[in-house]
Amino acid sequence: MQLKVPEHQVAGHIAKDGKPGPLVDDKGRFFKPLQGDSRGENEVKFYESFSTNTEVPDHIRRFFPVYHGTQAVEGSDGATMIVLENLLADYSKPSVMDVKMGSRTWYPEASEEYVQKCLKKDTGTTTVSAGFRISGFEVYDHKESSFWKPERKLLRGLKVDGARLTLRKFVSSNSLSDMGSKPDSAFVSSVYGGSNGVLTQLLELKTWFENQTLYHFNSCSILMVYENESILKGNDGDARPQVKLVDFAHVMDGNGVIDHNFLGGLCSFINFIRDILQSPDESAES
Amino acid sequence: MQLKVPEHQVAGHIAKDGKPGPLVDDKGRFFKPLQGDSRGENEVKFYESFSTNTEVPDHIRRFFPVYHGTQAVEGSDGATMIVLENLLADYSKPSVMDVKMGSRTWYPEASEEYVQKCLKKDTGTTTVSAGFRISGFEVYDHKESSFWKPERKLLRGLKVDGARLTLRKFVSSNSLSDMGSKPDSAFVSSVYGGSNGVLTQLLELKTWFENQTLYHFNSCSILMVYENESILKGNDGDARPQVKLVDFAHVMDGNGVIDHNFLGGLCSFINFIRDILQSPDESAES
Repeated sequence: MQLKVPEHQVAGHIAKDGKPGPLVDDKGRFFKPLQGDSRGENEVKFYESFSTNTEVPDHIRRFFPVYHGTQAVEGSDGATMIVLENLLADYSKPSVMDVKMGSRTWYPEASEEYVQKCLKKDTGTTTVSAGFRISGFEVYDHKESSFWKPERKLLRGLKVDGARLTLRKFVSSNSLSDMGSKPDSAFVSSVYGGSNGVLTQLLELKTWFENQTLYHFNSCSILMVYENESILKGNDGDARPQVKLVDFAHVMDGNGVIDHNFLGGLCSFINFIRDILQSPDESAES
Repeated sequence: MQLKVPEHQVAGHIAKDGKPGPLVDDKGRFFKPLQGDSRGENEVKFYESFSTNTEVPDHIRRFFPVYHGTQAVEGSDGATMIVLENLLADYSKPSVMDVKMGSRTWYPEASEEYVQKCLKKDTGTTTVSAGFRISGFEVYDHKESSFWKPERKLLRGLKVDGARLTLRKFVSSNSLSDMGSKPDSAFVSSVYGGSNGVLTQLLELKTWFENQTLYHFNSCSILMVYENESILKGNDGDARPQVKLVDFAHVMDGNGVIDHNFLGGLCSFINFIRDILQSPDESAES
């Protein structure tokens, strides 16, 4: 089995201090190392539960990566990995964004110390103010013919207006490294709009979240991806925008209550996307 | 002007330590003393803004108490009071419940100390877990022919199942002081259901909250009220259930972002009410 480091990871853990990072194979699979503590176990528990849960409708299941079990991976010190669908396998020049959902990233049963740590990040980013935060993105830069990925530090400092601007940049064709240039929102209708676009997918998710009391998706992310190669070839209609949920290390049982934290953030995120669709030419200043 | 202490106040500040409490007159007006610090001022600011804001649709305005300005009230040390519509003026035997909305009751700009104080209450009650907490209620007890109002301490200790049970008790005809008896949910369809019922009103509010970016209603409550006298006379159809928003001391500008905190809690509350409507006979145990 040929495994390699994924090219377009925008957030989450990477190989560091001898610990393995995620890997991909050439058969469309993504290998995610089990996180330490109980987080890895909890994520496996979620995937096992979710993949066999008959109460999850099929049209919702497609918003989640396909789960292929766990596997000890040679060459990574035999570390156990979660084997998932590689969400980017079918994209040649993907633009990707990771958006951490909810107005809090801690969960009710967490330790005081963990709550305080999260709370500090949540108030310092747009998590509390907007109900979500952009935790990573990579965009194909059409002017430079290369991928552009901002430093994490830059993203952490984003306020509401910065998040709004970043969501415009994500669907723009002009150079992103030039911070002064106004994003042209060239791909807004083919990525955010349309019957298969991001907004439509988000609204479908929202309908489910208004009713589902199975899981609480604490500290979970929405991954948005679209294809740039088709756009380069002048075929905007083939951008294949996709919305996926990722990162389930802190998912908990819903116990009959809807996930109002995720849902509130999702509704806010939907409004940001809708605003951009309704006024693609507008400056980001509010 | 004849002013007296309101009969059915279920939550909020009362006369204490020489400070005046709220008063009512016989012309359907409610006098609310300005709270200390900047809270009183902020509430006046909200009412002034809201009552003149042309962007608020009329069908939404009816969910808010009518504002009659401020007034210095004699006999209360000349204290300045906010003059509002008395929401209970037209009810002879009202059952009333105050539900504090949102999965956090602090606001983004609050001091560290205030945040921590709220956070402690929020995690200790159902605020974090359910996205709302019942902060007070008074129910007309048909068996005892008197009003029944639980102690605040009892309400503070409620968990999710307790909140669910309390929302059933609110629309039940059997004695409430007997904690062992199972609520019969006798009035569920005439109070929570129907085209003018609580659920319909909540859904109307939800539609507005999905779009409105004018205000963030931090630490605001939903007041539910219905008439028992008509029910006593065998006329369930005249229960006149009403949903109102109250307590605006911590309302802030929305700055282009929806109030995802209130909205998430509202969606959760709607699901609690819907669950009770769909299975009125079910035991409250989950």
